[in-house]
Amino acid sequence: MNKAVLTSQRSDFAKWYQEVLAKAELVEHGPVRGTMVIRPYGYRLWELMTAELDTRIRNVGAENVYLPLLIPESFIHKEAQHVEGFDPQVLVATHAGGMPLAERLVIRPTSETLFGEVMARWIHSHRDLPMLLNQWANVVRWELRPRLLLRTTEFLWQEGHTAHADGEEAARFALRVLVDVYRDFLVNVLAVPVRVGRKTAAERFPGAINTLTCEAMMRDGKALQMATSHELGQNFGRAFDISYTGRDGTRHVAWTTSWGSSTRMLGGLIMVHGDDNGLRVPPRVAPIQVVVLVVHEDPAATLRAQQIVTDLRAGGIRASVDAQFHKSFGRRVVDWRLKGVPIHIELGSRELANGTAVVIRRDNTVKQTMDQSQLLGAVHKLLADIQQTMLEHAQSALASATVETSSLDTAIDAAQVGFARVSLALVTGADPSLLAAQAVTVRCIERADGTVPMTEDEPDLFAILARAY
Amino acid sequence: MNKAVLTSQRSDFAKWYQEVLAKAELVEHGPVRGTMVIRPYGYRLWELMTAELDTRIRNVGAENVYLPLLIPESFIHKEAQHVEGFDPQVLVATHAGGMPLAERLVIRPTSETLFGEVMARWIHSHRDLPMLLNQWANVVRWELRPRLLLRTTEFLWQEGHTAHADGEEAARFALRVLVDVYRDFLVNVLAVPVRVGRKTAAERFPGAINTLTCEAMMRDGKALQMATSHELGQNFGRAFDISYTGRDGTRHVAWTTSWGSSTRMLGGLIMVHGDDNGLRVPPRVAPIQVVVLVVHEDPAATLRAQQIVTDLRAGGIRASVDAQFHKSFGRRVVDWRLKGVPIHIELGSRELANGTAVVIRRDNTVKQTMDQSQLLGAVHKLLADIQQTMLEHAQSALASATVETSSLDTAIDAAQVGFARVSLALVTGADPSLLAAQAVTVRCIERADGTVPMTEDEPDLFAILARAY
Repeated sequence: MNKAVLTSQRSDFAKWYQEVLAKAELVEHGPVRGTMVIRPYGYRLWELMTAELDTRIRNVGAENVYLPLLIPESFIHKEAQHVEGFDPQVLVATHAGGMPLAERLVIRPTSETLFGEVMARWIHSHRDLPMLLNQWANVVRWELRPRLLLRTTEFLWQEGHTAHADGEEAARFALRVLVDVYRDFLVNVLAVPVRVGRKTAAERFPGAINTLTCEAMMRDGKALQMATSHELGQNFGRAFDISYTGRDGTRHVAWTTSWGSSTRMLGGLIMVHGDDNGLRVPPRVAPIQVVVLVVHEDPAATLRAQQIVTDLRAGGIRASVDAQFHKSFGRRVVDWRLKGVPIHIELGSRELANGTAVVIRRDNTVKQTMDQSQLLGAVHKLLADIQQTMLEHAQSALASATVETSSLDTAIDAAQVGFARVSLALVTGADPSLLAAQAVTVRCIERADGTVPMTEDEPDLFAILARAY
Repeated sequence: MNKAVLTSQRSDFAKWYQEVLAKAELVEHGPVRGTMVIRPYGYRLWELMTAELDTRIRNVGAENVYLPLLIPESFIHKEAQHVEGFDPQVLVATHAGGMPLAERLVIRPTSETLFGEVMARWIHSHRDLPMLLNQWANVVRWELRPRLLLRTTEFLWQEGHTAHADGEEAARFALRVLVDVYRDFLVNVLAVPVRVGRKTAAERFPGAINTLTCEAMMRDGKALQMATSHELGQNFGRAFDISYTGRDGTRHVAWTTSWGSSTRMLGGLIMVHGDDNGLRVPPRVAPIQVVVLVVHEDPAATLRAQQIVTDLRAGGIRASVDAQFHKSFGRRVVDWRLKGVPIHIELGSRELANGTAVVIRRDNTVKQTMDQSQLLGAVHKLLADIQQTMLEHAQSALASATVETSSLDTAIDAAQVGFARVSLALVTGADPSLLAAQAVTVRCIERADGTVPMTEDEPDLFAILARAY
């Protein structure tokens, strides 16, 4: 029996998480409190994620831009709720080249204010609308209780910013991004099922009139907000004078939205799919989809393994050889499991002699021996099957972790270890301290059929309760 | 005759440059002095450039990582020349959430110190070497005389950082990056010919023992440094204790390199290829390679144009329809020329009736009429030809702008409007103020055959003189 390589999830989930990040060589702490270093394996995973997200963002019509890191402090103060929300977290630069600056500069915590400024300049007529922009960037929010990937002083993200001629179109667009960009990416690429819904007024983005969210359930029973999409109404339109000449020849204030997702999603991926042997990476974003391990030091086997990898790569598979003979075979198997590579292929002397290979799935440890000539076709099928199986597995875990109840007390109890779904009326009618005392929050509000309500005032709405990261 | 849309390059190159940036909707000033906003068209161009560069960086074996934006001030002070070089330019954050920070934080001007810190942790044995890393990131250097894309307070770049077991291997790698990554990209993708060589000791990167450079010639006769590759010797290895256990079982200090290229290359692209009608974009990085202009408002013509664009896209071409009938046809032609789209296709009522299209090259204005059925094949050939013609055109411009002479006086005169190539011995033997008085610098040092010397002490070396951005 192998000695455990990780603290078990059940005994200490937070410790398990830290250990996976370190041992799978994903991310680690930077020298400044709350910052992180994303290592090659973690960064490649992020690149594969962002490529998929970027395609979806383009598909809804948005174009990428780059706006400055540095924001004049006065900008942040132009929208009243926005400044209140971000002031406690902003990092401020005061000196350059040893001299005090004329105006203090905020290191961007988010870019609504800069997008407001450029949109005001770029938008003239109704023909310029909708204006659909997106930015991939780093942002800084000073964190008192940082946690790698989940809450860091600096993180990487995309932030979409759009302007529309009217509020209904803006609302439709914010919802479209939630569903067609974020949910589609989370479910079909990361294999992470989510609940989608509205935030309560208290949980909205600073300056928004509505915030929509995708909420996922981690293996420890806590929820993680994976992505949000905000209707900003005319708040930023007014504050930055984003206006246009309508078909009627008069000036109108534009309606704006913003929407974002970050390296936090990578944390969610780990906490949804990881197990006591390490990470499990969905094939669609796996930096290495197949690793071919040469069991013993043997030039013929190594050559054969390289040929197999060459063939797999020619077939569009991200494959690597492991011939690190200075490490024991057992250690290597453990390390690839830690990294969550979806398929291991083992090539020992018996397989070399027989022209076979042993193929092992990371997700369910199923092992099969097959002819080397069958590998490419089998790997394609297996990767598709692993992707689907991981999603189904996560969907069933989400279902088991969700309790539907008509009692608020039961809901608050259940929300300690998962999602509780309860009538919104029960929650709004109750003393808020009931939830707060148990560290439970309303993660989102949804309709009876699970879709996203247009307002909080629709009848028959449900609240989804949980503890959250 | 068209009214000129731009100041001519000959009458005022700096003004022409500013106007192209604005009218082609590439970049503009951000609200904080020296910062820039990269607009959708400019950013797409940058994305296409970075994709090509990233492939070449992977091909030399480097892996991407992400290190923090924020650097403890003490780090910058660990390497003596490095701090001297960067102190006058660093932006320093002193407050977060309204409270003074315990340690002042530098917004990264470059990341040698952070890479030093992580490499010291990640490198243990000779088996961990070479360690080849790269980062795509934003950096901040406070600029007193900013100029869009060329010298901005914040810019986007990639910075490679590598560690090697010995100095010779590090030197070979720094040269390999210069040639196989940068020169190959500049010549074969951007169609920008360059001179490659060593910098003089005075022009080295702060902390380097050798700096290699790619120098291009702009249309106004000034040189632009497009990319640099540095041997850092053991300076950072010692300062950050980057050491490894060798095959001999004892500890050795590693040798490191760093190498970078930035959004400045986009400025170079504009100043090498632009003309009095605007930008000319090499097809390999053109956000739009072909625009199909519908001449008159006519649903049948628009439909046909859309079909042509669909077919071109299916054939791997980046194509767009222009049916913006609220703008005059002449205005639209001028705007696409300003943006430098390599091929315009015009579809008027005559072409619609005849099943033909008028195809116009941006680079040399050659116009031809052809059957619509021939378009895809013709466009592929034309794009390849435009790419090649632009390179040859730039190569011949570079050759004409280069003077070879054995007189230093002649060289200094010639360097006012181009490159002057003169024996290095003449330059080192002369009073440095001779060059400085004419704002001329040694851009690089090369061998008689144009290759890169290993030291400044080789016999028979040449200095390349020019004024520079």
